[in-house]
Amino acid sequence: MDIFDRLKNLIGDESRITRCEKVRAEHSKDCSSYHIGNLPDCVVFPKNVEEIKKIVEFANEGNIPLVPFGLGTSVEGQIVPTRGGISLSFQKMNNIIEVCPEDFYVKVQPGVTRVQLNEELKKYGMFFPVDPGLDATIGGMAATNASGTNAVYYGAMKHQILGLEVVLATGEVIRTGGAYLKSSSGYNLTSLFVGSEGTLGIFTELILKIHSVPRFIMTAKAVFNDVESASHAAIHVLRNNGSVCKLELLDQSTISAINRYKQTSYTELPTLFIEIMENHFTQVKEMLLLSDCCELEVEDIDEKREQLWSIRHEAAFAIKNLFPGKKLMATDVCVPLTILPVAIRNAREVMDRNDMKGSILGHVGDGNFHAVFAVAPFDQGDLERAQHVNNAIVQFALNNGGTCSGEHGIGLGKMNYLEQEHGASVFIMKKIKDMFDPKGILNPGKIFTS
Amino acid sequence: MDIFDRLKNLIGDESRITRCEKVRAEHSKDCSSYHIGNLPDCVVFPKNVEEIKKIVEFANEGNIPLVPFGLGTSVEGQIVPTRGGISLSFQKMNNIIEVCPEDFYVKVQPGVTRVQLNEELKKYGMFFPVDPGLDATIGGMAATNASGTNAVYYGAMKHQILGLEVVLATGEVIRTGGAYLKSSSGYNLTSLFVGSEGTLGIFTELILKIHSVPRFIMTAKAVFNDVESASHAAIHVLRNNGSVCKLELLDQSTISAINRYKQTSYTELPTLFIEIMENHFTQVKEMLLLSDCCELEVEDIDEKREQLWSIRHEAAFAIKNLFPGKKLMATDVCVPLTILPVAIRNAREVMDRNDMKGSILGHVGDGNFHAVFAVAPFDQGDLERAQHVNNAIVQFALNNGGTCSGEHGIGLGKMNYLEQEHGASVFIMKKIKDMFDPKGILNPGKIFTS
Ligand SMILES: Cc1cc2nc3c(=O)[nH]c(=O)nc-3n(C[C@H](O)[C@H](O)[C@H](O)COP(=O)(O)OP(=O)(O)OC[C@H]3O[C@@H](n4cnc5c(N)ncnc54)[C@H](O)[C@@H]3O)c2cc1C
Ligand SMILES: Cc1cc2nc3c(=O)[nH]c(=O)nc-3n(C[C@H](O)[C@H](O)[C@H](O)COP(=O)(O)OP(=O)(O)OC[C@H]3O[C@@H](n4cnc5c(N)ncnc54)[C@H](O)[C@@H]3O)c2cc1C
Repeated sequence: MDIFDRLKNLIGDESRITRCEKVRAEHSKDCSSYHIGNLPDCVVFPKNVEEIKKIVEFANEGNIPLVPFGLGTSVEGQIVPTRGGISLSFQKMNNIIEVCPEDFYVKVQPGVTRVQLNEELKKYGMFFPVDPGLDATIGGMAATNASGTNAVYYGAMKHQILGLEVVLATGEVIRTGGAYLKSSSGYNLTSLFVGSEGTLGIFTELILKIHSVPRFIMTAKAVFNDVESASHAAIHVLRNNGSVCKLELLDQSTISAINRYKQTSYTELPTLFIEIMENHFTQVKEMLLLSDCCELEVEDIDEKREQLWSIRHEAAFAIKNLFPGKKLMATDVCVPLTILPVAIRNAREVMDRNDMKGSILGHVGDGNFHAVFAVAPFDQGDLERAQHVNNAIVQFALNNGGTCSGEHGIGLGKMNYLEQEHGASVFIMKKIKDMFDPKGILNPGKIFTS
Repeated sequence: MDIFDRLKNLIGDESRITRCEKVRAEHSKDCSSYHIGNLPDCVVFPKNVEEIKKIVEFANEGNIPLVPFGLGTSVEGQIVPTRGGISLSFQKMNNIIEVCPEDFYVKVQPGVTRVQLNEELKKYGMFFPVDPGLDATIGGMAATNASGTNAVYYGAMKHQILGLEVVLATGEVIRTGGAYLKSSSGYNLTSLFVGSEGTLGIFTELILKIHSVPRFIMTAKAVFNDVESASHAAIHVLRNNGSVCKLELLDQSTISAINRYKQTSYTELPTLFIEIMENHFTQVKEMLLLSDCCELEVEDIDEKREQLWSIRHEAAFAIKNLFPGKKLMATDVCVPLTILPVAIRNAREVMDRNDMKGSILGHVGDGNFHAVFAVAPFDQGDLERAQHVNNAIVQFALNNGGTCSGEHGIGLGKMNYLEQEHGASVFIMKKIKDMFDPKGILNPGKIFTS
């Protein structure tokens, strides 16, 4: 019997195991990045933890790779089945198990998406703040320690996950943390699993902290003559206002790309998008104008605010649209805040020098930015040029006290930087990996080069 | 040569190694808890990471226990040298290495205390928010994942530590994280070390996130007829106001004890202390009065606010004062918020039933509360009665979805609950301990019963 037949016996429901070429292709790579796909041998859609336990035991016994799959929006090749095996999709595990607004938590299955969750939480005047722009599963977001625009105030996934149910490589099921907001009881295993990209265990249930929707939100779009003034203004606002919940930067070329894409005529200069959860209109306006802001728009009506944000959210698509058929490569460094303006200037110079068109989008409140460019993955020259630019941007960050990934994770794309960034710590990480997964069946070939 | 002589050779500076009875006694137990002390063989005051590396290598080779010691304010016996060996004090490693207000971080040595740090940060209009009431070292606070009154807004130590330098049991020195605000690069080793109570490695440098001092702070003291109304009001305020940074509860008997201790005449009913970082006076007043608050005082002048807080801060001492010569036992459970009123009522009933006088202090915004009582550690009957009450409070929490420690840690006092709380996860924690410290030299006998 091959893998497929044995899984059928194990699960007993044929409709949730497939080796259909199309479905395997859908699970061979993520939805937008330049990473080249590789087919899994089959795709399974488990329904509950018991099935996952059985599948993992089976895989462990037979040394069969297992690759957890959420929505496939990760961008560093995280869900590519490098050595075939089983792609484990959480499509059918998308129940919101428990909503406890008074206790400020929800319990969800891993396949629940953040849009689905927020739709439900609306009923209670609450929301889940981690927002990587497009939709994604909570399991995938936990496994990449995703963050996005709200992180400056609410932090990343690691700050929002209170507890996990995890199936280990042996098939053993453990629980970490719980539905309480604070604990100093034993080692923090929850945080060890968050960001482990499917390599340490499979999350089958997650307890998340939820938050009240702020009563007041004000959005500002502030235009500056250069990236330096915009960055200084950002730090100034952050230091003087504790209610900043988003603080995003688009550089000049990015605004140009958006104008071309959307047929708009926004001033083509570095632009900050700022969101504040209090009625601090006068104070923030003063701060921005004092910080050499040359054009300012402030909105507090939801519809108008969303119009402003749509500019920010179109940026990646504006670039992709310029190069039909190409894929995206997104650098994702994070540096100390004061390094950000030079890091961005350096990135733009490297891109220009290599004739690499692209957007620069910064989660500037965290010192995290992306240079996003279009790449033809099978065009060796194009790919190498893009990788050269990517590498220069990462090297600049690492040489200036930064990290090679602020939020996208390591996957395949950043493996080469891990040792440079972490030194001897990488060997500790590897020892942990070996301890949790001695046969190396969980998402093999990711994070570590060997 | 004995340990002392060999350490002298190693360090070359006699003044920083001692086997003086008095100093050993000072390092034999913490400053206030009921845990019984045990002398270390000697106490060392290292000056830098190189010395610590040498000491650890020496201890590892000779199977000599090593117990890191901050200020000795922990309350679960964490710094008791159960098997003698070396007590490692960070008194001489108390430099603030770097203050970067624009990058929102500081780099400190482990012996820096939070009061010392905040004194320095004042110059920049910034502060470090984790506040366990009395003074403590940053190293000790990191190792217990301390939190305290500000946690409802700023979180615990694990939310504030960006990076660590750690000497492992082998003497190897590693770095985790860095001076950036966000990262998804490899496993989160920083969080694994935070809260490990000196059992996984010795922190020799810490990078901390710092924050701007809020421009406006308002403190309210609100009195309620019962703990239930106070708790409901707390949840109501939390759900409707994102700027709450402290939310503390004292129960009726605690206010009585304070009145006796301070010769004051505060209304002897459950009382909330609330701090809010915005000018939301009218809104909060309305909310509290709608929630059956029967007496309300609101202050926004610093001096007056501090007067209000002094009531809260005297609570533990009020209890200790009633029983001169006795030591403190503090339960430290954390439960889902809606469980808090019943958990507190249960705690008070158990205490009354067992004639155990004590304060109940709640970090009610987190669902974390302490019942603090005075114990004579060498009076077997008294100790057993206290442990019986403590146990009943912990069992109630564990049976209702809570944790046995919200912020004090496990040490010796909570070891028996670890498996009940975490199930199979404890074996993973132990495997991690064995991996990091195969010979078990780092703070042996803590956290795990075997
Ligand atoms: C245009 C664009 C913009 C983006 N912007 C952001 C942004 O602002 N911030 C940000 O953080 N990210 C961003 N991303 C990246 C992506 O959205 C995130 O990485 C997201 O968290 C992936 O979620 P997913 O459900 O698609 O996971 P997948 O891509 O399916 O999987 C991601 C990883 O999680 C693992 N995994 C999935 N489910 C589980 C589980 N149950 N148990 C264990 N492991 C599991 C997978 O094996 C894989 O390693 C962006 C991506 C695109 C294309
Ligand atoms: C009256 C009172 C009130 C308190 N209130 C609170 C509160 O509100 N919130 C709260 O969280 N706690 C509270 N505590 C507990 C205590 O203050 C905290 O646990 C504090 O974090 C201990 O810091 P310390 O410097 O005294 O550490 P110590 O007690 O010296 O050590 C604590 C632990 O840290 C380890 N350690 C110390 N330094 C290092 C290092 N460099 N590397 C590795 N390990 C190290 C030690 O081995 C030990 O396991 C209270 C205590 C008292 C007595």
